[in-house]
Amino acid sequence: MRQVFLDHQATTPVLAEVFEAMRPYFTDFFGSPSSLHHHGLRARDALAQARSQVASLINAESPDEILFTSGGTESANLAVKGVAAASQRRGNHIVVSAIEHPSVLNSVAFLEHQGFTCARVAVDANGMVDPEAVRAALTDKTILIAVHHVNHDIGVIEPIADIGRIADERGIPLFVDAVASAGWLAIDAQALGASLLSLSPHRFYGPKGVGVLYRHRRARLVGMMHGGVQESGRRAGTENVPAIVGAGVAAEIAGHELPARGAGVARLQRRLWEGLRERVPYLKLNGPELGPRRIGNNLNLSAEFVEGESLALLCDTQGIAVASGPGCVSKSLRISHVLQALGLEHGLAQASVMLSLGRGNTDEEIDYVLDTFPRLVEKLRGMSPRWADFAAGLADSALAPRGPAGSMPESAPTAVSPAIAARRDPAAELAGADGLVRR
Amino acid sequence: MRQVFLDHQATTPVLAEVFEAMRPYFTDFFGSPSSLHHHGLRARDALAQARSQVASLINAESPDEILFTSGGTESANLAVKGVAAASQRRGNHIVVSAIEHPSVLNSVAFLEHQGFTCARVAVDANGMVDPEAVRAALTDKTILIAVHHVNHDIGVIEPIADIGRIADERGIPLFVDAVASAGWLAIDAQALGASLLSLSPHRFYGPKGVGVLYRHRRARLVGMMHGGVQESGRRAGTENVPAIVGAGVAAEIAGHELPARGAGVARLQRRLWEGLRERVPYLKLNGPELGPRRIGNNLNLSAEFVEGESLALLCDTQGIAVASGPGCVSKSLRISHVLQALGLEHGLAQASVMLSLGRGNTDEEIDYVLDTFPRLVEKLRGMSPRWADFAAGLADSALAPRGPAGSMPESAPTAVSPAIAARRDPAAELAGADGLVRR
Repeated sequence: MRQVFLDHQATTPVLAEVFEAMRPYFTDFFGSPSSLHHHGLRARDALAQARSQVASLINAESPDEILFTSGGTESANLAVKGVAAASQRRGNHIVVSAIEHPSVLNSVAFLEHQGFTCARVAVDANGMVDPEAVRAALTDKTILIAVHHVNHDIGVIEPIADIGRIADERGIPLFVDAVASAGWLAIDAQALGASLLSLSPHRFYGPKGVGVLYRHRRARLVGMMHGGVQESGRRAGTENVPAIVGAGVAAEIAGHELPARGAGVARLQRRLWEGLRERVPYLKLNGPELGPRRIGNNLNLSAEFVEGESLALLCDTQGIAVASGPGCVSKSLRISHVLQALGLEHGLAQASVMLSLGRGNTDEEIDYVLDTFPRLVEKLRGMSPRWADFAAGLADSALAPRGPAGSMPESAPTAVSPAIAARRDPAAELAGADGLVRR
Repeated sequence: MRQVFLDHQATTPVLAEVFEAMRPYFTDFFGSPSSLHHHGLRARDALAQARSQVASLINAESPDEILFTSGGTESANLAVKGVAAASQRRGNHIVVSAIEHPSVLNSVAFLEHQGFTCARVAVDANGMVDPEAVRAALTDKTILIAVHHVNHDIGVIEPIADIGRIADERGIPLFVDAVASAGWLAIDAQALGASLLSLSPHRFYGPKGVGVLYRHRRARLVGMMHGGVQESGRRAGTENVPAIVGAGVAAEIAGHELPARGAGVARLQRRLWEGLRERVPYLKLNGPELGPRRIGNNLNLSAEFVEGESLALLCDTQGIAVASGPGCVSKSLRISHVLQALGLEHGLAQASVMLSLGRGNTDEEIDYVLDTFPRLVEKLRGMSPRWADFAAGLADSALAPRGPAGSMPESAPTAVSPAIAARRDPAAELAGADGLVRR
């Protein structure tokens, strides 16, 4: 059976060049960077090179601004808690977007138990953060603003530079979680106005077990991992040298491949979305429409009257790997807090699956998905009492076809009748979000 | 030039078998364990197997008691802070030995800033913790006892089972940092009475970037890395699957090789120590003498009138990798807090170097070190004003030869005169610690 991996927002394979660069550091150059001897020196040199490579990718002013952690989650924990600990005398208020990654939101919740307060800025139906809403949330006690570059779930690209200007005016550090964008979109930490910015190399063909936290040289940050004085005292623990080497090489390759990598996935993303919306009735794109406000490798789709988890499992039986729910917490959360924040109707939120493209995906794979995915949706709908009710005019749809219902694909045996479709029109007007099925 | 690696307490190379087991998880089986699809399933299976392998090594009752972190430092941070957070209602007092690893002591110091208090139990001149001193330090508010299995610096094996019985009597969790012993000594977490126990796979031929925290099923522990619900909600962040696989295989190999591995290094340790003390006058073994109270792969030596850092650097020029100061913080601390806690005279503490043996070391390598190391000590002493003063009878030694000074090795051109040696005898009587040079 054909295997199509469309879950690159969860993780990516390590590139062969990255693996080959890492390999000697497991066995031959295995020294600890803290050691005085030449084995340690070799490891320190490797760290320095990786720091430069990562600094280049995000246009940091100096490699000294790059800290290595164990992953994107630790980077976010360190950014949020480390700034809070460093700023306790200045204030105790944090402003975040409501759709940050759980590593940010749960770090903030942890701080709330310790006397911090937090404003969670709402987003629009596409997940966009309004910079003026961020400004309005600031108080004299605000010590940190945290807004991600791209949302991990719906691919919306936030107006970070605008938020960065506000943060700069007010002298408040801005933490930008760039885990979902690094390696896919160009990132200029200085132009964005980020005081802190996090990356996760395993999301762009580097290894797991390593994260990056960019820290502007003037940003105050207290280490949260206590022990030795590695990483300038801001992150104790023997450095994961092979993974850091891999992170550096993956960053360098990403730098070279951008923007071709971004354009390549965006082309497939468009083919996939346009093909699916032709073939699957009552299909919603969650988050912004394709274009400048959406990253080029993410399609978060809700096929109404279908359970996202069931659809993902069925896709897997056909060799298509997609995510159900937010990539990193599929096992736990049935409904994404992101989709809830968009105001998405419950059934649509439960229907969500995420198809995320990578540099290895091909047109042939997209053809296979365009052939297979609609049949799987049909199959599930065929077993769904809610779909049967809807087809019989006994239940509502949160979506509705636009245009003549007669354009429903022939392949949809349970296609709704024109009468039912017409009945749904008012609901469609109410929903009014981008990404509604237009057929 | 011959290369002799005698810094296995800092880190070890990844074994070929371990690397081969890890390899496919970088590129072929690269899925995230949180993913529903078969790539995720494969990763979950790999994690489950590694959990079983590690559980076997330390006789955990169940693989569910094994948590994976990013390293020994994170495991210690999680144990100390995670128990503290889980026990805040019960008390705020922590008892530790004074010579714990910095990851423990600095985590405790962090908690002290948050209202916790701590008793640091002193050790004897060999670094031994007296279980009765631990008992005496306990209060009604004590929520955690932390004593390491083996000290990272001087190799002393602590009487953990006795401390475990006291902890059990009082219903207080015991955290055992077993980073310096795992893979070298047999560990039975249940027999030791540990509620929590940490391992660092890169210290026993596994990879960097992964740590283990054993948690007895009844031990209360709150996660400190916030985000997703990986590791039963106690450690957020995408799991470092290849490294965890490597940790499992390294644990399995260690289990098979014990006790032969331990006996092998102990034999070389004895050859090395006996050879060096014959060849180097005024050489002190820091920590317990060789035998049941000292791990078999650690020699912490002070060659008086020599700077340990200079000696380590000179050794490196001859291809011999040794540590100066505690392995993981060589760059930072000029004097180990462990050696200070032993009451070691300042000059001797500054002279400390650590030679730690591994399974790859050979008798030929020991011969080379026995030939080279004494010459390097001589060379440095030849440049030392303090040695010249001592030789001229103008300065004191904290050590002194026992027996007839005439037995000083012929090879020592700057050997002290019998008169000076005799003058030092009272000081030697005062010092009186194990490990004094006996010639």
